[in-house]
Amino acid sequence: MRDCNEIRVVVPINIALIKYWGKRDEVSHKFLRLKIMLTYENMLPLNDSVSLNIDEMYAETLVRVNSLINDDSVSVNGISIDLTENLRYKRCFSVSCKMLEVRRLLHEKTISTSCDIIALKFEIISVTNFPVGAGLASSAAGFAAIAYAFGKLFNFSDKEIAYIARIGSGSACRSIFSGFVHWKAGNLNDGSDCLCEAIASKEHWLSIRALILITSHEEKTVSSSEGMRRSTLCSDLLRFRAEHIVPERVERLKEAILARNFEAFAHIIMKDSNQLHAVCMDTYPPIKYLNESSWNLINLVDCLNNYFKQSRVAYSFDAGPNCCLFMESNFVPIILVVLKKFCNLSDDIIERITRSGVIDCDNLKEQIKNMEKYLDLNEIKPVSVVVKDAYLSCVGTGPHVIAQK
Amino acid sequence: MRDCNEIRVVVPINIALIKYWGKRDEVSHKFLRLKIMLTYENMLPLNDSVSLNIDEMYAETLVRVNSLINDDSVSVNGISIDLTENLRYKRCFSVSCKMLEVRRLLHEKTISTSCDIIALKFEIISVTNFPVGAGLASSAAGFAAIAYAFGKLFNFSDKEIAYIARIGSGSACRSIFSGFVHWKAGNLNDGSDCLCEAIASKEHWLSIRALILITSHEEKTVSSSEGMRRSTLCSDLLRFRAEHIVPERVERLKEAILARNFEAFAHIIMKDSNQLHAVCMDTYPPIKYLNESSWNLINLVDCLNNYFKQSRVAYSFDAGPNCCLFMESNFVPIILVVLKKFCNLSDDIIERITRSGVIDCDNLKEQIKNMEKYLDLNEIKPVSVVVKDAYLSCVGTGPHVIAQK
Repeated sequence: MRDCNEIRVVVPINIALIKYWGKRDEVSHKFLRLKIMLTYENMLPLNDSVSLNIDEMYAETLVRVNSLINDDSVSVNGISIDLTENLRYKRCFSVSCKMLEVRRLLHEKTISTSCDIIALKFEIISVTNFPVGAGLASSAAGFAAIAYAFGKLFNFSDKEIAYIARIGSGSACRSIFSGFVHWKAGNLNDGSDCLCEAIASKEHWLSIRALILITSHEEKTVSSSEGMRRSTLCSDLLRFRAEHIVPERVERLKEAILARNFEAFAHIIMKDSNQLHAVCMDTYPPIKYLNESSWNLINLVDCLNNYFKQSRVAYSFDAGPNCCLFMESNFVPIILVVLKKFCNLSDDIIERITRSGVIDCDNLKEQIKNMEKYLDLNEIKPVSVVVKDAYLSCVGTGPHVIAQK
Repeated sequence: MRDCNEIRVVVPINIALIKYWGKRDEVSHKFLRLKIMLTYENMLPLNDSVSLNIDEMYAETLVRVNSLINDDSVSVNGISIDLTENLRYKRCFSVSCKMLEVRRLLHEKTISTSCDIIALKFEIISVTNFPVGAGLASSAAGFAAIAYAFGKLFNFSDKEIAYIARIGSGSACRSIFSGFVHWKAGNLNDGSDCLCEAIASKEHWLSIRALILITSHEEKTVSSSEGMRRSTLCSDLLRFRAEHIVPERVERLKEAILARNFEAFAHIIMKDSNQLHAVCMDTYPPIKYLNESSWNLINLVDCLNNYFKQSRVAYSFDAGPNCCLFMESNFVPIILVVLKKFCNLSDDIIERITRSGVIDCDNLKEQIKNMEKYLDLNEIKPVSVVVKDAYLSCVGTGPHVIAQK
């Protein structure tokens, strides 16, 4: 290893279709908790989850690994992170060093024995193209980027990369893959059977689109980690969900994805999104991530599906108020017309979506124009939501390196 | 029976501490459902519930039973009910007639054989001293009043009265009793083991107070019956709650009531209120009964209990946004000061509560004045709730007759 390695990567966010909520190694006893904190939580989820990676929202991260600089540093969107407050970065660095050390002890040839691994310092500069802290899995993308960069720099295996990502932020491990991803919780205490598996590639279901709607830029008051910790300790419904509902639901969702059955896909993911928020409500004190805009969008989706007499669009809300809509590409123009009419979606945003190339450009504009003329939406109950920003995306190809030296 | 019997009764609302949500005889198949509609639903709950009756919010109901007038009629707060739309009244009348008929066939002496029971007509005039349709169990009080009045007019047993009440509105059967009430779901298909039982009288825990806060007079968009029906059909968590959580919770609540352990009482009822709304969220499409004011009050209660380092106040929300707070009487002045400071509770409402005699009058005003001076509430995070009305009540003595001829 040279004195300085540098890599620049792009890693997308992933959106959970079956939600991850709760860690199985979360312990209520304070002493035990402290012990786990000191020896690193293994970040083992209570239940399996399923996600898809999207292309349009990502973290672009520069990672420098150096034995000469004074100290580790992390900046996200230009803001320096206090690493004594946010311990997860140090844990990722330290776990990576341990992996390198183990490899050196095994005399693996890719590591120079002259390099002092303990003295390695890490410099991370991460920029996201979307707001952080608003329940859009920004930290997942951020840690996935770090883990992926380390993987490329140090020749870590996919399993090692996923482990580093998970140490940073549980669901980050799903962002390492492309397309539709199944994160298996596993059963073993050491976490060795906790791993991600591809369900289907981006190419398998080319027509599916995710439309992320930003209605609030506010940071949430209860972080996902804190929310999960509380739910694991307090919610009687969470364990039942994890043990009895999720396993069957994951199987049905995988079938729906493999069969490209949008109706089944929509129904399962909306029910699972609802259940995440039900578990938050069942927590004491209860946790509220949805706001009035979220509820108005839920009602709008329900109205639209009733109007079309089939599920043409589905919502999913992570631990935050912002909404992700899923639909097939032929339904995108209708949704844009509806959002323009009911949710103040601006022409600028529509123009940006049109230019993004995620959907056929000229045709899109023309279709929107036609629909505005001919589609009778009077049956749809008006709602009051202001969509401040929107990102349309295909299923993503996963992380990639953009520069390395 | 004479040609006209007339009775005037007062029947209080009851507030569920362990919530009733879901009927076990709710059937998804449309044909079966229709069949049940025609033969009367037995209104058998999925789970046991526990409630307390309060004194200050009630239905005052005049019932006239007559064989001379043309047709049945019901008015609630001066508004005539369309009995072809709302079938439950007719069901209560018809069930009562059947009971009378059975008794006549058995030659019971209290019924004159000259009276044509089939020709009986019912006139109901009901007035509540609180807003209806806002999730305050108004229909429960209304049907309990009808059932109780019939009971007094026709010498029905407590079990028969509870059955008529339940046919009208499930939880109405809890209003027939006084103090703390346990409604047992039972197991039998004919509902003969579905009955109410007193846990403790009003006198057992004299210091407990209920403070009902009206923040919204709007009628809810999804009725309790419709909400329950949807949850029973769609929520995976509801059945688990009914079978595995409620039985133990009911036992623990009964113990807390019998031991007058407010800390345990508070914790159990808040968790159960949360769980009702969690089940509503787990329904598809999800049902939302809580609004921003409800959430602000939940947070305020949590803040207060943290501030006092013990649970001094507990919230409970039925299928609506309005809040019921429980506390012991010595904590009432503090709560009033807090509501005055943070929730715009008006001096007029405080004056009315003071005059209601539910709490020692002179002392209350003095305590409020002192606390406003000396209580430092700066640690409490300000909330924006407007409490439009408030009712303070002791545990109630249950229904009573105020006139009969």
